[in-house]
Amino acid sequence: MFFASDNTSPVHPKVMEALTAANTGYVSSYGSDPIMETVRQKIRTLFEAPEAAVYLVATGSAANALGLALITDPWQSVFCHRSSHIEEDECGAPEFYIGGGKLCLVEGKDAKMSPEALRNAIEFTGRGGVHNLQRGVVSITNVTEKGAVYSAAEVAELTAIARDYDLPCHMDGARFANAIVASGATPAEMTWKAGIDILSFGGTKNGLMGVEAVVIFDPKLAWEFELRRKRGGHLFSKHRYLSAQMDAYLTDDLWRDLATHANAMGQLLSAGIQKIEGATLLHPTDANMVFAGFPRGAHQKAFAAGANYYFWPFNQNLEGPADETLTARLVASWSTTEQDIEAFLNALN
Amino acid sequence: MFFASDNTSPVHPKVMEALTAANTGYVSSYGSDPIMETVRQKIRTLFEAPEAAVYLVATGSAANALGLALITDPWQSVFCHRSSHIEEDECGAPEFYIGGGKLCLVEGKDAKMSPEALRNAIEFTGRGGVHNLQRGVVSITNVTEKGAVYSAAEVAELTAIARDYDLPCHMDGARFANAIVASGATPAEMTWKAGIDILSFGGTKNGLMGVEAVVIFDPKLAWEFELRRKRGGHLFSKHRYLSAQMDAYLTDDLWRDLATHANAMGQLLSAGIQKIEGATLLHPTDANMVFAGFPRGAHQKAFAAGANYYFWPFNQNLEGPADETLTARLVASWSTTEQDIEAFLNALN
Amino acid sequence: MFFASDNTSPVHPKVMEALTAANTGYVSSYGSDPIMETVRQKIRTLFEAPEAAVYLVATGSAANALGLALITDPWQSVFCHRSSHIEEDECGAPEFYIGGGKLCLVEGKDAKMSPEALRNAIEFTGRGGVHNLQRGVVSITNVTEKGAVYSAAEVAELTAIARDYDLPCHMDGARFANAIVASGATPAEMTWKAGIDILSFGGTKNGLMGVEAVVIFDPKLAWEFELRRKRGGHLFSKHRYLSAQMDAYLTDDLWRDLATHANAMGQLLSAGIQKIEGATLLHPTDANMVFAGFPRGAHQKAFAAGANYYFWPFNQNLEGPADETLTARLVASWSTTEQDIEAFLNALN
Amino acid sequence: MFFASDNTSPVHPKVMEALTAANTGYVSSYGSDPIMETVRQKIRTLFEAPEAAVYLVATGSAANALGLALITDPWQSVFCHRSSHIEEDECGAPEFYIGGGKLCLVEGKDAKMSPEALRNAIEFTGRGGVHNLQRGVVSITNVTEKGAVYSAAEVAELTAIARDYDLPCHMDGARFANAIVASGATPAEMTWKAGIDILSFGGTKNGLMGVEAVVIFDPKLAWEFELRRKRGGHLFSKHRYLSAQMDAYLTDDLWRDLATHANAMGQLLSAGIQKIEGATLLHPTDANMVFAGFPRGAHQKAFAAGANYYFWPFNQNLEGPADETLTARLVASWSTTEQDIEAFLNALN
Repeated sequence: MFFASDNTSPVHPKVMEALTAANTGYVSSYGSDPIMETVRQKIRTLFEAPEAAVYLVATGSAANALGLALITDPWQSVFCHRSSHIEEDECGAPEFYIGGGKLCLVEGKDAKMSPEALRNAIEFTGRGGVHNLQRGVVSITNVTEKGAVYSAAEVAELTAIARDYDLPCHMDGARFANAIVASGATPAEMTWKAGIDILSFGGTKNGLMGVEAVVIFDPKLAWEFELRRKRGGHLFSKHRYLSAQMDAYLTDDLWRDLATHANAMGQLLSAGIQKIEGATLLHPTDANMVFAGFPRGAHQKAFAAGANYYFWPFNQNLEGPADETLTARLVASWSTTEQDIEAFLNALN
Repeated sequence: MFFASDNTSPVHPKVMEALTAANTGYVSSYGSDPIMETVRQKIRTLFEAPEAAVYLVATGSAANALGLALITDPWQSVFCHRSSHIEEDECGAPEFYIGGGKLCLVEGKDAKMSPEALRNAIEFTGRGGVHNLQRGVVSITNVTEKGAVYSAAEVAELTAIARDYDLPCHMDGARFANAIVASGATPAEMTWKAGIDILSFGGTKNGLMGVEAVVIFDPKLAWEFELRRKRGGHLFSKHRYLSAQMDAYLTDDLWRDLATHANAMGQLLSAGIQKIEGATLLHPTDANMVFAGFPRGAHQKAFAAGANYYFWPFNQNLEGPADETLTARLVASWSTTEQDIEAFLNALN
Repeated sequence: MFFASDNTSPVHPKVMEALTAANTGYVSSYGSDPIMETVRQKIRTLFEAPEAAVYLVATGSAANALGLALITDPWQSVFCHRSSHIEEDECGAPEFYIGGGKLCLVEGKDAKMSPEALRNAIEFTGRGGVHNLQRGVVSITNVTEKGAVYSAAEVAELTAIARDYDLPCHMDGARFANAIVASGATPAEMTWKAGIDILSFGGTKNGLMGVEAVVIFDPKLAWEFELRRKRGGHLFSKHRYLSAQMDAYLTDDLWRDLATHANAMGQLLSAGIQKIEGATLLHPTDANMVFAGFPRGAHQKAFAAGANYYFWPFNQNLEGPADETLTARLVASWSTTEQDIEAFLNALN
Repeated sequence: MFFASDNTSPVHPKVMEALTAANTGYVSSYGSDPIMETVRQKIRTLFEAPEAAVYLVATGSAANALGLALITDPWQSVFCHRSSHIEEDECGAPEFYIGGGKLCLVEGKDAKMSPEALRNAIEFTGRGGVHNLQRGVVSITNVTEKGAVYSAAEVAELTAIARDYDLPCHMDGARFANAIVASGATPAEMTWKAGIDILSFGGTKNGLMGVEAVVIFDPKLAWEFELRRKRGGHLFSKHRYLSAQMDAYLTDDLWRDLATHANAMGQLLSAGIQKIEGATLLHPTDANMVFAGFPRGAHQKAFAAGANYYFWPFNQNLEGPADETLTARLVASWSTTEQDIEAFLNALN
């Protein structure tokens, strides 16, 4: 009954096996390990992008901040949703790596930018010549921070607006696997075919120990990324252990299987919660995250039974009248079991 | 016969076991895992510093750059040896994290700053009031990049100069364990008792997968470090896997045993090389790194037999007259065996 | 009929005289000129702040960005109005000097932050510990970018909220003189007595050639400001020419007289425009800036007669039906004459 | 007898006249004043560079830092002399504007980089791939900080080395006029014809109030410069007063006449000093700066008579045995008179 975040889950056994298998003998460091070459080729194949530059870093914030900095000048704006992870949960990492910059906050339901709001924000930015921040990059989070999933067509609609202004596009895919499974799109359809230039392809939340791939569809940017990664302190000497994790993730579609399971558990959880008297969904459960309100009495029972999840927003109080609604976020992961969910739903009732 | 760097060695089996042991169930993320609490206490005990703030990051560059930035203003100089890692091998990470700054290069034998040179450099800096960079931090690398080890007394001599100008002191201890073993000092004697304020306590080169502890002896700096770590993208969500590595490292003095072995192997290697006709040591082999010149013919035999190490400097040519001297760096590690060294020395002769 | 901006006006004759008077012989450079000592004392007297640190820079963006950077950490938010100059018209100078940071945009009528919106913004920021930007500084623009003036009491209401969270407060006073005249407050009442820690005291828009004073009420910050000013390239070698301008400004209350005139001209202009059939004020004319809508036909007549001002927003078209309303900003300055305004109003009708 | 620096001299009367002449009526702000258009054309003509982008800023540090940042990535090195102004006297402004970077210090006599030392420094930098700072820009100071002048041929020799590595070249010409007069080269010969890409063309030290032109020979860089200037707070609203100064400077070769005079006064001063018993020149007096050692007794007489100049280095003591040598820097300027020098030399004897 641990639904606090998918990043509280353990590492998948196949990933641990891959780490053990990689742990023999001496291997060249700093990314020139042979496993990385395999990873590079597998990602290129998966994304139907034979020229793509592929790099591994250990955290999602590093992946996003380095990727954004690669295509954003310090005097430019990044257009993103007000509730995006880069705005809310990275303590200014994008601005640090960009060397200034400004996140221009775009509205939209379920943490998805609305096309109209995006166009208005771009139009407004840069209206005053040298006096304003300049138009920079569009950054799309998929799965969104509210658990919604953009279809490939919805992504393409946003990137088309960006193209009207010659702006590059970034995707924060910390939960990219969940988005792929939920949308039915292929990785290529969801990214470069939909106008994405750089992707953070998350692994940590979906069964890895700590690896995210940065996929850069324009290989001309590769060398600068390497310099930025090194300078940020994100180039691992014993890089083979990042490679091994990602290799396991890519083998036999492990990434997809884990996300498929996590999403299914999310649906189960969502369906069960909706049956609680007085329950409402705050956002659609498109993938593995459930945002719901239900009576405090049910929350009290859940916590008493040992459930673990966050109120959303945080500042709500478990103490109080039992019939008032409290809102919460519950996240399923690759390791969530049906038994977990059953136990949780039983506890609520 | 793989002596290219200690970071090409694998992860020690006890560390792999610790990772496996940590891989059960759900655990709070972002550093609030229970293993981290154990690590914190063990490091405080080891360093006889019950108030010290302790953090884990995954790379040495991150540890150094974050630690330095914590005590260096953007308009200040960091005094370090011309051959220090922060000057030569971090692609400007310190300047990036400091937000400017300047590394003021100090001379000295075997990559150890000479007290006179340090005092002169400090004296010269800041002579012109607002026009110059200001005096900032003294950063000492121990083991040095040339394989020499400062004694605790030598460290204290440098930090005493810093104190004359009210400057804080940083130690890059990527090979701190090797320095402790070589010097015979305790961790406390080598650090806060010798005037060090912040230490990068390396693990990666000495048997871990990718963990360095930042030990901050003044706990008032703790919160700012947390913000800087997060903002740099260096806060791991699945932090327990960093903690588990460091916990294994600290258990039963594994860190010390591995460094003791690596240093012993370094001595063996150094002694063997010195027996080669025409061989000379460029720097004393204080720990696990050997810098030596010997005839090209011997190098040719070594490489032909499969040895792996770097010419130092890089730009030397294996092809050429057999009796010319080529200089090289050879690094032993926790996993180097006597057999490796014997095989290597046999190949040379 | 030149109402484009107060910064299109010339330099007041007394200021030119002061520059000429200062132009004799050799004088110590970089701020150690004797006139600067006079300026410092005059500002301390004017602000009833005998300890205040006082510095001169040449642009408003430099004054704001340096002042903000002095009290904002790179991982902190600056709370300011969505229409503030630091957000809209400095091309990211605050973020550049802060080294990151984030402007957190607060709503409110007439570009004045509403106390509720400010409190909500502060409360929301920093809710998630290390993951969010931290609460930083409150920056108040007076006169606002929409021509409204905060009373000293209104300023104090905002700074009281800041104090609830231990946040320092900055005032962008590019048109501080106009605000003082309009509000009737003394400089001390409007600043440190109302909770302001750092003020940009503008001169350029009010008759100087290019000088703004930065008044820092806590003198402990003085030296760091000097370093930041130098490092930003804003320390003038021939500083006496900045001092001379500011000295003239402070002599016999020139700053006040010029602002009194500019505000009176603003009132006259506003009153005249309101008499146009179909005219409406978008914001109150508290000082020297008029924001008004009136029929395109009147605009056409004005431009035909040689008037010069900006549509606000810019992207409106002079061509089209005569009875549609177009909105504009018109700014009076120290050099605006009644004849200018009469001629303009006559042209409209 | 004021030889402390050329920046302690006043503004030339023709420049004051030009400021007065510019002070009529309303003029478009932020660089769109008509005088700037004249300035741009005059500089293009003077430099035989019809496409050059030309901008004005108010300080030499701003000119250098903005110019360097335009062509230096944050992970690159700027190769400059150890005694250059950007290294010694800008409090890290280049690193601030570059966003990191590193000044790689090159040796050479009289503060002129020696070609060999430059080539070695470039060769050494970037030897280690992603681990090192990368090769960036060569920055040449002419007149040097020790008063020497590079000939156009000497500049070309350095830039040819830069071209071997595809590096752009910057010239800090705070005393460019003095260098032109001393070398006999034309402005074009000294800059783009000799391989310079960006020039700081100083005016402040040579009779202006505070204006330096940045001349960018590749106009493709123009827009980015404008953004950087604005973001640095260096775009003046009442820009016409910068333009007017520079326009006067360029009219009837005022810049050249003033530098010719200053250099002649430098020669006179140098010749006179050399006649003092025991005097030695530390560096050749190529332009308007004299570096000399002479007995303390003569210094004592000079200061007693009211002379004003700096010991060089600063930390020398006027008190002591009269026959010991103290070294000093004396700078002549456009306003230095023969009488000044005579009086000074008389005082010494």
